[in-house]
Amino acid sequence: MTTAALNNEQLTIYDFPVGPYPTRVRIALAEKQLQSKVKFELVDLYKGEHKRPEFIEQKNYSGTLPVLELADGTLIAECTAITQYLDRLDGKPILTGTTPLEQGVIHMMSKRAEIELLDAISVYFHHGTPGLGPSVELYQNPEWGFRQRDKALRGMHYFDKVLQQQTYVAGERFSMADITLIGGLVFAAIVKLDIPTECKALLDWFERMMQRPSVASQPAFIGQ
Amino acid sequence: MTTAALNNEQLTIYDFPVGPYPTRVRIALAEKQLQSKVKFELVDLYKGEHKRPEFIEQKNYSGTLPVLELADGTLIAECTAITQYLDRLDGKPILTGTTPLEQGVIHMMSKRAEIELLDAISVYFHHGTPGLGPSVELYQNPEWGFRQRDKALRGMHYFDKVLQQQTYVAGERFSMADITLIGGLVFAAIVKLDIPTECKALLDWFERMMQRPSVASQPAFIGQ
Repeated sequence: MTTAALNNEQLTIYDFPVGPYPTRVRIALAEKQLQSKVKFELVDLYKGEHKRPEFIEQKNYSGTLPVLELADGTLIAECTAITQYLDRLDGKPILTGTTPLEQGVIHMMSKRAEIELLDAISVYFHHGTPGLGPSVELYQNPEWGFRQRDKALRGMHYFDKVLQQQTYVAGERFSMADITLIGGLVFAAIVKLDIPTECKALLDWFERMMQRPSVASQPAFIGQ
Repeated sequence: MTTAALNNEQLTIYDFPVGPYPTRVRIALAEKQLQSKVKFELVDLYKGEHKRPEFIEQKNYSGTLPVLELADGTLIAECTAITQYLDRLDGKPILTGTTPLEQGVIHMMSKRAEIELLDAISVYFHHGTPGLGPSVELYQNPEWGFRQRDKALRGMHYFDKVLQQQTYVAGERFSMADITLIGGLVFAAIVKLDIPTECKALLDWFERMMQRPSVASQPAFIGQ
């Protein structure tokens, strides 16, 4: 599919505007200037709409947001997959790398930002805090949740060390890996897990990220 | 980097030959006919060598295998990242897709095979069974482990349904997503979680996968 083809198409994104994962895809869309092609369909996480059988059967087996639906009904879930798709549509990737080495390193650092920060905080949110409320959180394992919170705190120190040595998460260019880490910090704010003040490089990087219109304009940051 | 450049280079992979995750990269290497370029360095999981400070500091912060090290010392961890890199080296991707749509769908289905099967079984192994033994498994949360085993069983039924409708996990071509699901079934065998007999499409697919030399030749299957 080319950008020309995309002009005639509508993309739908199943979305929760302030959600940490949806924010990742929203930033990618803004970086690619594709927002005007997208219709956002609200799926209310606090009502558990993402866990209803019809959503799981028809949109995303994993019961998570966001999900991208193409005009022909094809569904793409998972932020890295959606970002990979959107970034390559016009043949000019700016988020997922051009050389094999860039692609490898960006995918590694993005995955690491998920494992060590974003996904860890997600588990803490759903298991160590009230999460989405008792009608959605049908099973909680607080001990596991608190372990994951501690892991995320260690993750902040790790990324601080990375950012002491390089300008962006995957090297000297903004990429999908920065977006994933931003998603992690969106979630950190929701669960009130502050970036430790000694993580100066991480704090500086986050301040720089917030100067990007693609980031600063997100509902997660402007409150909506 | 081109294949020509690669001829003069040595790739190193930190590896545990029968491990489910290392098996994924070993299959990718075999599909790309790159095995002869690789030196495998054994990291003994049962001795906890992947959790030692020197491995974590110098090779992979997440303390997992496999890790790819290039001749210049660049490190790429995470199976999807390594596969993305290896598959694109010669400019002729056969595992991670060519069009944006193929790339998106393959990344989605590979991630789904991780979340719903492979990673779930990994958590079960480390938390609901003796795992790597008491000197490596310093914290276990059996209740969480057993939940993840149940999730993996549901995942098998999900992938069975997918494979009733298409030949491979991400469509009509073998891809990284098949490799990830194979990794999941390697781990399922280790924890003795049988594929339910009613999952005929999944069992058929697995039989077809075992006819591929890249799969059948792995230490995880021939026992080594």
